[in-house]
Amino acid sequence: MCTLRVAMAQVNVTVGDLKGNAEKIVQYVNEAREFHSDVVVFPELAITGYPPEDLLMKSHFIQDNLDMMNYVRERSNDITVIVGFVDLLDGTRNAAAIIHDGNLVDVYHKIHLPNYGVFDEKRYFKSGKSCPVYVVNGIKVGINICEDIWYPDGPILFQSKAGAEVIININGSPYHQGKPRLRKQMLTERAVDNEVFVVYVNLVGGQDELIFDGNSMILDPRGNVLSEGEYFHEDLVVTDLNIRPLRESVTEDSGIVIPDLARGNQTNAIHISHYVCKPNKPSIPEKLIREKDGLEEIYDALVLGTHDYVTKTGFQGVLVAMSGGIDSSLVAVIASDALGPENVLGVSMPSRFSSEGSILDAQELTKNIGMELHTLSIEDIFSTSLEILDPIFQGTEWGVAEENIQARIRGNLIMSISNKFGLMVLTTGNKSEMSVGYATIYGDMAGGFAVIKDVPKTLVYQLAKYRNSLGSTPVIPPAILSKPPSAELKANQTDQDNLPEYDILDSILKAYIEEDVSYEELIQRGFNPGTVKKVIALVEANEYKRRQSPPGIRISQRNFGRDRRMPIANAYRSF
Amino acid sequence: MCTLRVAMAQVNVTVGDLKGNAEKIVQYVNEAREFHSDVVVFPELAITGYPPEDLLMKSHFIQDNLDMMNYVRERSNDITVIVGFVDLLDGTRNAAAIIHDGNLVDVYHKIHLPNYGVFDEKRYFKSGKSCPVYVVNGIKVGINICEDIWYPDGPILFQSKAGAEVIININGSPYHQGKPRLRKQMLTERAVDNEVFVVYVNLVGGQDELIFDGNSMILDPRGNVLSEGEYFHEDLVVTDLNIRPLRESVTEDSGIVIPDLARGNQTNAIHISHYVCKPNKPSIPEKLIREKDGLEEIYDALVLGTHDYVTKTGFQGVLVAMSGGIDSSLVAVIASDALGPENVLGVSMPSRFSSEGSILDAQELTKNIGMELHTLSIEDIFSTSLEILDPIFQGTEWGVAEENIQARIRGNLIMSISNKFGLMVLTTGNKSEMSVGYATIYGDMAGGFAVIKDVPKTLVYQLAKYRNSLGSTPVIPPAILSKPPSAELKANQTDQDNLPEYDILDSILKAYIEEDVSYEELIQRGFNPGTVKKVIALVEANEYKRRQSPPGIRISQRNFGRDRRMPIANAYRSF
Repeated sequence: MCTLRVAMAQVNVTVGDLKGNAEKIVQYVNEAREFHSDVVVFPELAITGYPPEDLLMKSHFIQDNLDMMNYVRERSNDITVIVGFVDLLDGTRNAAAIIHDGNLVDVYHKIHLPNYGVFDEKRYFKSGKSCPVYVVNGIKVGINICEDIWYPDGPILFQSKAGAEVIININGSPYHQGKPRLRKQMLTERAVDNEVFVVYVNLVGGQDELIFDGNSMILDPRGNVLSEGEYFHEDLVVTDLNIRPLRESVTEDSGIVIPDLARGNQTNAIHISHYVCKPNKPSIPEKLIREKDGLEEIYDALVLGTHDYVTKTGFQGVLVAMSGGIDSSLVAVIASDALGPENVLGVSMPSRFSSEGSILDAQELTKNIGMELHTLSIEDIFSTSLEILDPIFQGTEWGVAEENIQARIRGNLIMSISNKFGLMVLTTGNKSEMSVGYATIYGDMAGGFAVIKDVPKTLVYQLAKYRNSLGSTPVIPPAILSKPPSAELKANQTDQDNLPEYDILDSILKAYIEEDVSYEELIQRGFNPGTVKKVIALVEANEYKRRQSPPGIRISQRNFGRDRRMPIANAYRSF
Repeated sequence: MCTLRVAMAQVNVTVGDLKGNAEKIVQYVNEAREFHSDVVVFPELAITGYPPEDLLMKSHFIQDNLDMMNYVRERSNDITVIVGFVDLLDGTRNAAAIIHDGNLVDVYHKIHLPNYGVFDEKRYFKSGKSCPVYVVNGIKVGINICEDIWYPDGPILFQSKAGAEVIININGSPYHQGKPRLRKQMLTERAVDNEVFVVYVNLVGGQDELIFDGNSMILDPRGNVLSEGEYFHEDLVVTDLNIRPLRESVTEDSGIVIPDLARGNQTNAIHISHYVCKPNKPSIPEKLIREKDGLEEIYDALVLGTHDYVTKTGFQGVLVAMSGGIDSSLVAVIASDALGPENVLGVSMPSRFSSEGSILDAQELTKNIGMELHTLSIEDIFSTSLEILDPIFQGTEWGVAEENIQARIRGNLIMSISNKFGLMVLTTGNKSEMSVGYATIYGDMAGGFAVIKDVPKTLVYQLAKYRNSLGSTPVIPPAILSKPPSAELKANQTDQDNLPEYDILDSILKAYIEEDVSYEELIQRGFNPGTVKKVIALVEANEYKRRQSPPGIRISQRNFGRDRRMPIANAYRSF
């Protein structure tokens, strides 16, 4: 029996922090070496962070990244390191460095470049053309990158046909709801179909609107998960792959030829390390992770996304405008879980329309969380504003203008506290509101990060209940969960004055936005034509608002942001 | 001698307005027919408008576009029509319909799909693989689309080698400063190198941040411009191409074979119309357009962009916050030129820090333009806001928080007027400010469209002087041009308290943002290291503000928007 000891270094790097990322990588290389690992594997573009976007237009950025890859190489003695970086070879390449004992043995270039959804890789990269097999510790290993492994007839097929016993696939695979399970299913198929071990190493962390959920894993050729990395946390997972019982007698010098994918050339396997079976390795326990249920998975993604956006942009604390409603309550709890309650400051800004209940609910919530709450009445500023506008507004009826003034006074007050004390404002709008524009631009939409921007209202309730279920007493007061949602911008207002019931609204929105279903098909699915027309009209008319909204965490298969690029001046309606 | 009468229909269509666009196309087909044109040519994706972006993800949108292409086809009797649409053939294609006498003769699929800068065509389209030659009126014609013609070894080479005498190239070619000249130069080379007539038909109009400048043109095989369309306006240009003197004796039945680009197949030319030389055509004068000088070109682009964004999003009038400064003055004049002074409402919102001069300058300017001006003092709201915040702010020093409160009160007031009367707020920030974040988010950045977002401060002055030179008396009062720029958010403030002189700042910004020059190279170019560091740090730190800014007109080769996609959480600095 021959063993390959593989360390999966599931790191949380920061886009653009080349030096910091390289130092973190070296630290993990050292740790993997202490475990007597043969190979340590890092995620896609670990040196630059993912996605670096238009930083890739800067030639000095690419040069600095090359310097940092060399910095890692120089510190990689006595181990094999696979690490993602940007290569320059007849164009810019999304690449994996194969480093052994301080030498750059080879570089793999990503072949399948995703250019859909949130991805723009054809904007930046040229596609690779070959997928060799390397001999590491006497074992044949194929390396490829992220999207490559989603194609059954991609590099994995060539590499396994050429004798690869282990496929190492490095990733920056963005999270959406249910993605971890989908990914495990796909990887199981690949391992079984190609009769190989699959080492899947994923990035972890938040980057602007994207979450990378980690959960790196190793599958054996029967599709069993041998070992896994944590969800949503950095991790180093060391695993012994016992190769020989599965595929006998492939020797180092078998002379097997490896196809060079595009050119049709045949090359010999590239020998990386010539010793077989390092002695005296203490054995390593396998690590398996409990699958998260749907709500836990989403909640944890929101906590990680909030933590990483706030800290990676250089903030320590945040501000949340607490209305006493479900949205701001959930955001405050998420922020507190992400940053600690001492780093979350609530601001209650009641108006003449705020109910006593709302004010008290906000107070109770913040007390439960253990966070501070300031209260600032907007009444004086509001009445002064109406006086100032009276010469222009006289003779008109109270309407949206007057409602929005209140929301924008709140936006002004909370932003001034943000400016004064260097705290980031988290906005509290949910996906249902963002879809139909039920929010005040420069008012409640004012802030640096929109935590639940991709969470529909119905899911907001579920997540609140899930979070309440974690403690012995509910952190979010039950009154907040049970009262009808209201913007409280005029007397006796509820959301349902203007919008359909949220369960209907969310069903229409999911079909229209995430599945691109037409008006006709929505009617066929049984929705009321008038309601559907109204919802579609609202979605399209509010693109300008979404374009000026802060980024928020993507948890769906189509978020507002990188994923959905709609024109603002757009006369198309499907009805 | 044989003549091909070509009508270039340089139309201004609206993205998504499929029915409206089709009707406009039919109207131009009819007009071209009245001129006895053999062929009428429309721009790239004329049916859908360009760019339709993620509307292309909706299968019903593509179906509706096909229906509208057929609507045009059915109304195209007795003429050949070349029109851009979205085809479905083994994927989505950026296509040109070749319609003759009511029949769809063939469809050309764009081969070179741009996926850089403002373009994302690989997100949407599959690339075409063949570039046939058609025989129209006895003359051999090759058709291709936009980016295709920028490649000397692209379709034009194959088509001209296969005997094409005329190349028709349909475009949605976005404007930037100097682009018309650059484009003419390239087209001259193509015509001369391939010894062909080039019929270049461009879109005209504004679409979100993009301007299409028109200036369609026909070049003869010696590279002379025979005929041109207007800049920045819709136009129909009918021109006789006198082919035979240039290339003798190519008969319809010469049996020439046309290469099928990718497959290496050989096909016969596709015969479209079999009559030769329509009789009794009255002759048509040629149309040549004076080249615009740099400032005129940019100014006209800004006027078109403002007009089209406002009207295509369904607004009739706009609001401009008039500070008495150069930026808001220029924006008000542009808006007035675009929409008429009766559709531009100014709002002066002086504070305790507004100079008497600023208030009077704004009044004089609006009087010169002939637009209305409301004046609302922000003092009472400001002092009330400071009182409300006093419990939180006490013991702190006056600073950015207090400055920004004023700008956000103005944002609130002008947005409330916008909400009340249905007028779009135009913001007045220039590119220099957008670059370094010298603007208040939700304050002066609040609005629907940022007219001069891509115009550096130094160019703002030049454009103001240019506009003043058009009348017998200057529309923008000279005092506005001569006083030092100031945000007037505290006593005795000028922009240069915080920023380098604008000529230095703009030079650094152009190099850093538009040319991706590094810190090191900027130092080598002679800029002060401290200044460069400060500017780079400001640019990078303010990405979050730009991401929440309204769209604005692109006039440079790299604007803030589609053109520059930077991460917000980004630790990279090149120093």
